[in-house]
Order: sequence, then C-alpha cells, then structure tokens
Amino acid sequence: MWKNEDDAATVAQALLSQLRLFSYTGGEFGMDRRGFNRRVLLGGAAVATSTSLSLAPEVSTAAAGPRTAPAGGETRHMKLYIEELADGQMGYGLEKGRATVPGPLIELNEGDTLHIEVENTMDVAASLHVHGLDYEITSDGTRMNKSHVEPGATRTYTWRTHAPGRRADGTWRPGSAGYWHYHDHVVGTDHGTGGLRKGLFGPVIVRRKGDILPDRTVTVVFNDMLINNRPAHSGPDFEATVGDRVEWIVITHGEFYHTFHMHGHRWADNRTGLLTGPDDPSQVIDNKICGPADSFGFQVIAGEGVGAGAWMYHCHVQSHSDMGMVGLFLVKKADGTIPGYDPGDHGHGHGH
Amino acid sequence: MWKNEDDAATVAQALLSQLRLFSYTGGEFGMDRRGFNRRVLLGGAAVATSTSLSLAPEVSTAAAGPRTAPAGGETRHMKLYIEELADGQMGYGLEKGRATVPGPLIELNEGDTLHIEVENTMDVAASLHVHGLDYEITSDGTRMNKSHVEPGATRTYTWRTHAPGRRADGTWRPGSAGYWHYHDHVVGTDHGTGGLRKGLFGPVIVRRKGDILPDRTVTVVFNDMLINNRPAHSGPDFEATVGDRVEWIVITHGEFYHTFHMHGHRWADNRTGLLTGPDDPSQVIDNKICGPADSFGFQVIAGEGVGAGAWMYHCHVQSHSDMGMVGLFLVKKADGTIPGYDPGDHGHGHGH
Amino acid sequence: MWKNEDDAATVAQALLSQLRLFSYTGGEFGMDRRGFNRRVLLGGAAVATSTSLSLAPEVSTAAAGPRTAPAGGETRHMKLYIEELADGQMGYGLEKGRATVPGPLIELNEGDTLHIEVENTMDVAASLHVHGLDYEITSDGTRMNKSHVEPGATRTYTWRTHAPGRRADGTWRPGSAGYWHYHDHVVGTDHGTGGLRKGLFGPVIVRRKGDILPDRTVTVVFNDMLINNRPAHSGPDFEATVGDRVEWIVITHGEFYHTFHMHGHRWADNRTGLLTGPDDPSQVIDNKICGPADSFGFQVIAGEGVGAGAWMYHCHVQSHSDMGMVGLFLVKKADGTIPGYDPGDHGHGHGH
Repeated sequence: MWKNEDDAATVAQALLSQLRLFSYTGGEFGMDRRGFNRRVLLGGAAVATSTSLSLAPEVSTAAAGPRTAPAGGETRHMKLYIEELADGQMGYGLEKGRATVPGPLIELNEGDTLHIEVENTMDVAASLHVHGLDYEITSDGTRMNKSHVEPGATRTYTWRTHAPGRRADGTWRPGSAGYWHYHDHVVGTDHGTGGLRKGLFGPVIVRRKGDILPDRTVTVVFNDMLINNRPAHSGPDFEATVGDRVEWIVITHGEFYHTFHMHGHRWADNRTGLLTGPDDPSQVIDNKICGPADSFGFQVIAGEGVGAGAWMYHCHVQSHSDMGMVGLFLVKKADGTIPGYDPGDHGHGHGH
Repeated sequence: MWKNEDDAATVAQALLSQLRLFSYTGGEFGMDRRGFNRRVLLGGAAVATSTSLSLAPEVSTAAAGPRTAPAGGETRHMKLYIEELADGQMGYGLEKGRATVPGPLIELNEGDTLHIEVENTMDVAASLHVHGLDYEITSDGTRMNKSHVEPGATRTYTWRTHAPGRRADGTWRPGSAGYWHYHDHVVGTDHGTGGLRKGLFGPVIVRRKGDILPDRTVTVVFNDMLINNRPAHSGPDFEATVGDRVEWIVITHGEFYHTFHMHGHRWADNRTGLLTGPDDPSQVIDNKICGPADSFGFQVIAGEGVGAGAWMYHCHVQSHSDMGMVGLFLVKKADGTIPGYDPGDHGHGHGH
Repeated sequence: MWKNEDDAATVAQALLSQLRLFSYTGGEFGMDRRGFNRRVLLGGAAVATSTSLSLAPEVSTAAAGPRTAPAGGETRHMKLYIEELADGQMGYGLEKGRATVPGPLIELNEGDTLHIEVENTMDVAASLHVHGLDYEITSDGTRMNKSHVEPGATRTYTWRTHAPGRRADGTWRPGSAGYWHYHDHVVGTDHGTGGLRKGLFGPVIVRRKGDILPDRTVTVVFNDMLINNRPAHSGPDFEATVGDRVEWIVITHGEFYHTFHMHGHRWADNRTGLLTGPDDPSQVIDNKICGPADSFGFQVIAGEGVGAGAWMYHCHVQSHSDMGMVGLFLVKKADGTIPGYDPGDHGHGHGH
C-alpha cells in the first residue's frame, strides 16, 4: 500500500499503529507529494529522530469500531524552527533545515498542555499565534504584546486545552476540540501579512475523548490563489485506498474568499464534520465558503458509495479553479489501480 | 388561485395532488414568470408529455399535518437535453427546444437511483456534474475523467442516493438528503466557467423519509450579478397566498460572493432550513453569505406573522442590490390582493 | 469597577441590577469609548431621562446561576430620531441631538411588541428596516412599500416578536430570538446604500425565556473598511474585568466580506453563541466569515482560561487588518491592571 518504504519504516509502522503523536503533513519541500501524514511519519527523519515529541497513547477499541481519542491531560514539549526556505518562502519545522509549508500538524487531546520552544533562524522578527486554544497574553504572538521572537532568538509559547464541562454557575463551557491553526503575526505587518504570504502557517487539531481517529490527515491551505503555496496547477494530490478514513483540515489565509469543494465526497457542517447521529440537524455539504483564518475539518471514507477514482477537490470560485486552485484525491482500488485515471493527462484535472 | 389554467390542467391538478415527481422551476424562457414549479407542472407540456419521468408516490398524512416525503428506493430514468438558447445562453431541458435557465428541478427521495440520458445538441462539448449525490467516476462530468458529452452525442449519467444509517463499524453515515445542484463542468474551461456563465445549472433536492413537503418550490440562482440569468432589475418574482408553504432553493455560481436576504421571512441555518424542534441549536437567519457552488434551502409559510405584501428578496451586498439583484415574493391575501403593491411602481423594488 | 460614576449613577446601578431595558452601545460621539452599554445606561442622560422606555423585569436566579431572560409579552413604545451628525455622518438616537453610530441597542424578549415613533430630522427621506422580527408590510421601511419617512416627518413602525411553538398542523415554528439589526433602506439608493455608509444602522437582540443575560453588551459593525464608522486604527476598544460575561453582537454592512476574529476567546456557531450542552454539535470558532447584513452574537467570559490582557479583535482579511480594522478587548485583573499593556504603544495593536 505504501511505496518506497524501507524495512525500518515497516517496523515503525507496526509500532506506530499503537501510538499517535504529532504528525506531519508534508508540502512540496522534499516530501512525498501525496502529503499524507502517516507516510511522512514513517519515512520522515524529521519526526523519527526528534526527541522533543511526547507520544500520546491511542485507545484501542473492538475490531468493529474505529479507534478513538483518549482523554488528554498530558504536558508535552516540542521545538519549532521558523526558517527561510531556499525558494524565499518561510516555514515552520520540527528540525533545523526541515521547515515546510504548511508547517507540521500539531495534534492534542483536550486537557493537554503544550510548551513550544520556538527558534527564529531568520533575520527578521517572527512569531507563533494560535487559534482556538488557551494561552496567556505572553503567548499571543503579537508585537503589541511583546510576544514575538527576535531574529536568532528563542521563545517558549504555552498552549493549553480543556475539556468541556459545567462552570460553578451551572453554565456550559465548551471544550477546546476543533480544527484550528497557527500562524505568524509579525512578518511584514503587525498582522503577519508577509509571513502568511510566504508560508508561515500550519494546522492544529484538538480532539475530544471519544472522537473518531482517522487513518490519516491531509492539510489544505487556500492561501491567496495557491494551495499550500504550491505553484498553480500542481496540486497537492492526496492518495488513499477505498475504505480509508481520511481526515481533511482546510484553512484559508490571505486576502480572498474561497469555496472549498470536493467531488464525490461530503461532510457535515459542524464541529467534527461527522454527524453525531440521526438527530444532528447540521447541513451536509460538499462546498463551503471560507475567508482568511477560517478553518474546518472532516473525515471521509475514501470512495464510499462512489468507488475509486481521481476525485477533484478545488476552489469553486470560477477564476480561482481556472487559475489552478485544484488538486486530486486519488482513491485507489485495493489492487492499487484508479479507474480512468491517466497521470499523463493530469493537466485537465488541474484546469489547463 | 392559479390563473390561466385550462380544464386539462385542472384535472391534472387533482391527479398530481396524489403524486410527486420531477418538478420544474421555470426561468424566463416562455415560462410563467412566477416560476413556481407546480404551475409549470400543470401547464407545462414539457412535463405533461414526457414519458421518461417516474412518478413517486406521496405519503398522505392526517388532515392536520403536512404531507411528508416517503422512503425512496426507486430506480428512475429521465432524458435531459443540453441546448443553446435563442439568446445565446445555454440550458438544460426535459424536452428538445424547451431548455430553461435554471434547468429543471430534480427531486429524489433517499434511496432512489436516477439514470439521466443526456443529449448534447450543441456544437461544443458539455457535461452534467452533480453536487452531493453518489456517482461513480464515470458520471463525474469532467473532461479529465472522460465523462463529458461530445457535440451531438448522448451519455447516461447515474446518480444514486442513500438513507443515513450505521456502518458495520458502528459509525454514523449521513444520508444524501439536501439542497443540491447540477451544472456543466466543461464548457469554456475545465471547470465549466463558460457553461455556468451562460446558464448550465439547475437545482436538485433529495428528501428524507418524513421530510415535510412544500406546496411549491422556487429556485434562485445568484450567478455573477444576475438572478437566474435574467436581466438586472427584472426579478424573478414569485407569487403565493398567505399560508402557502413555499420552499426556496438558493444556489450561487460564478465569481462573486453574495448575501441572500428576504424581507419578513426567515429560516434555520441547518439541513432543511426548518428547526427540528425546541432543542435544535441552529441559528435562525434571514441573511446568508454564500459563494460559488454553495447551495441551501428552506421553507417559509408565506406571510406568517407578517401578512400579505410585496416582500423583497435580494442580494444584500449594496452594489449588487443597487445593480438589480432583487426580486419580489408577492404574498397575496386570500382574495388575491396585495396591500400597498402597485405593479407599475415596480421599479423601486428592483432598485431603480 | 466603574470609573467616573457619580452618586446618582451608583444608586441607579442598584436599581438597574433588578431591571433590564433598552440598553445602549455607544459609538465615538460623546460616549465613553469603551462603549459598554451598562456604563452608558448609568451615565448616559439619553437613557436615564427618556420617558419612552418600557422597563422589562429580569428574572433573578439563585446566587450560583446567571441571570436569565424572562418571558416576553409586553407592549413597548420608544422614540427614535434619524439625524445628520456634525461630521456629515448619520445616526439613530433616542434623544434629539444624541444620535450615534451605531444606533442604540434595542433588546426585546420573545412575545414583546415594540412601537417605534421615528422622527426624521434630516433633509432627505430615510427609513427603519429591521431584520428577523415580524412586521407588516407597512413597517417594511422601503420606498416601494411607501414605508419610509419624509424629511421632517414622523412615522411609527411596529415590530412584533413571538416565542417558538407548534403550529396547528404540528410543525415547529421558530421563535424570534436572535442577534438582529436595523438599518435605513432609503438614503442614496432604494437599498439605503448611502444611509448605511454614513452610519444608519444599529443592533437588535431578541431573547428567549431562559436565555442567559450578559453583564454587558458590545456592538461591532464592520462597515466597508471601518468598525462602527470610526477612523481606521482607532478601535473601538472595549474594557472588562476577568470573569465578566460580555456579549458581542457583530454586524456587517456595505460592500465587502470580512472575517471577524478574536484573540484568546471563542464561541459556538449557533443561535446564542453558547453551546446548549454536551450534545450540541455546533462548531466552536474564533473566526467567522460574514457579508453585508449578516449578524451574529455570542457571550464570552472575559479572560476565561487565558487571564487578563489586551486581546485584539480584528478582521482577518489581511489588507483589512493592515488598514486598521482592529480593536482591543481590554481585559483587566481585579486590581484594574492589564499585564503587558502600554496604552501609549497602542499603535501596534491597531496595525501601524
């Protein structure tokens, strides 16, 4: 199922099937262009050699049920580098010289605390600002609150999360679970417009105890007219096999609004993208308007009810798709084939 | 209540009150400008003479309750023509020479399968791409997947729908019910930008067993700066009598975002546009931002709590309404009058 | 906790703790720039001296629980002036010469009826159009329906609200509760484009029996590239103390889409902005796309889980925040201090 894996990775896969940790969605910088996090988890030295990652146990369920998220409550530490990339873009990375666009996926369970030591290797100030999580004003990541990182300096940001529950006054407090994201708030302008344009953003997922875990997670960032800052008409494409539970986190940045559309698959417009059951009134959609800093996520069963195929996902603003905001969800049969798909004819999918 | 009906139509009305089938929302091409589907169902030769329509039974309920959708499970067949219209626009139609903008409303019940034989009478390739429903990659309607229709050719697209239910692993699978739509994906660009601009789009409604059925359905497509591709400042207007249950399906296409607003009526921002009951947390709104390929629907009781009147609906982006993205929901008293409405003074409603 | 209050205001505070009435969110016209309604309720002569306000009783709950809204059913009367302001803007006001941008917050409980006598003191026609509430076509506020107010004239608009409940046919009718708004529909164009640009808009909140009442309410109107029509880079800022329950109502007007974002605080994307409990599937967000005439609201516990600080709120469209669509939520410790906040360094928060 996974190509180009060496023996060590195969061993790692067995181990990792019992573990879940900070995973990683690769961009185009030396990563497999499929960009699946597990693929990178296995093959990516960035993760395998890192000593700063805390491993969170998964809850095993009966064979018939999906894996679900455990309760949180752990304190974790990680190191994050802010770097200028060879092509002039900027990225966050788990290892020096390994920054990517988008930055690594950071996964937490409600109740977890994460201390992130950020080293800014660039020659301009930068920062780390997160959406949705709890952080004191000293971790705001803004220049106004003096919580940025000067060139060559290091700063530790602390993110906290909490489970839902009743306050002392009886009112209900929402938990931190959600499809969130982090980004720079300093480069170029006091709102990080330059840093965002060049790639300083990444996904964050906070899970609630019992949330269904996916087989893998892919990240799509609509940033101005590009997806994940890749050249137009070049994806990213994501591969799966029919039946895989694939989680999508979709983030928008920049100046423009977009509509995210997937062919042959759809999701619920709620917290998890999954209906809670027959009484959940949420609209099921396959197209969603989003603007800068909006984020949402969902899980699909690849090819469910529709089979294998080269399923487009794209921005549905007509000029945006025509200009190349298109990628493919390449859903393979069990034998690895994709009916009707000719990679050499790829241009059509990308709007040429 | 319905003007200009002949005897045959009156007979048909009695019959159709027990039947529900592919209904039809007329555009401005030879149709009654009210655009109500039942009006067209009764008077429109397009539907009355078609032999390709499968009729779906309605569930009758006690006198006090509204009619509701039955379970699906039927296999249906229809023929659809893609045509160039006299004014240079393009449309889908149930009969040759009868294409409209928007195309005919297609209604299904969860569980139904629909085979659509599409004949492309134009001299350029075109296609049929649907949102929300289940279809194999051969019915994708894209050039990349070789599922378009060459000029003069015919191709059968198959759409499937399914009811919600539990998967073998215990997780919940959403059903197909929703306010969806179909459109070309080929004319002009690989994303159908030319076909969409010229009118190749139409509404699809998939109903769940028990969903409340409306008295009639109207379709509004915000396509660039026009509504249903009509000239600016010319509606469409829709008529009803106080107490009618009128269903609206609202679709956006093109390049711009819009905000759909109705005067004097509102709906829930969820799957059906109707609250499921007192515990449904959905926001009730009368204004909704939407972008290309977004779609939603709802039902209102015409004039409920507000009475008869010429109620505007319009895009609330100020320049768009000023440029004429406005129509009227003409809600009549039982005696057929509309208080304060002077059709000759119509320009004000349309923003002149 | 409240500065600059005189003795009369202190007495009034004790009284008002048992009462809830039409409250008021100040703009920059002679109002405290914090813009909190209770502050203005106490100190603002506009409210204190008005004889047209009906006072609605609050429901007291046990010490541990928050105050909640009572059932409605009252008939209220108020007077509203439409005025040109000294700087060429236009506003609604409760007293002659006291109009503000945005106009006064109008709060109702489901079941209430409100008669508003509107006096247009300007030399051009203007009107009052409301979203979400029940009104007959004579209160539409449009020129087409002859429900505007000529220069120097007076017109009474009647707004009704209703609680949710079952219709005779067994279907569920939503109630009027929501975060709504009113605006001109006449100045400049038949859609009030000129009136909206100059400031003719204001917030309306309709509460359901049992809805949690906030300690105070703030209003944010994204109107083209400005917030509450203030100069760019000048807020408004809002003050609170850690633990205060602060309600935000966010309205958009004009031509552009925006994304409303708050630092360190978040809300549920549903009717109240508060989750109904553990089964509410709504997404919790801290960023929301909105277009002209969209409105939503929510309550936050100031500094909950994050502490005191100068928390930015801003439009997250990058050019908009860079151009100054930024304000501060100044959350103080109990001792009145805000860690790390230097008012003299304010420019950074506002994007200079």
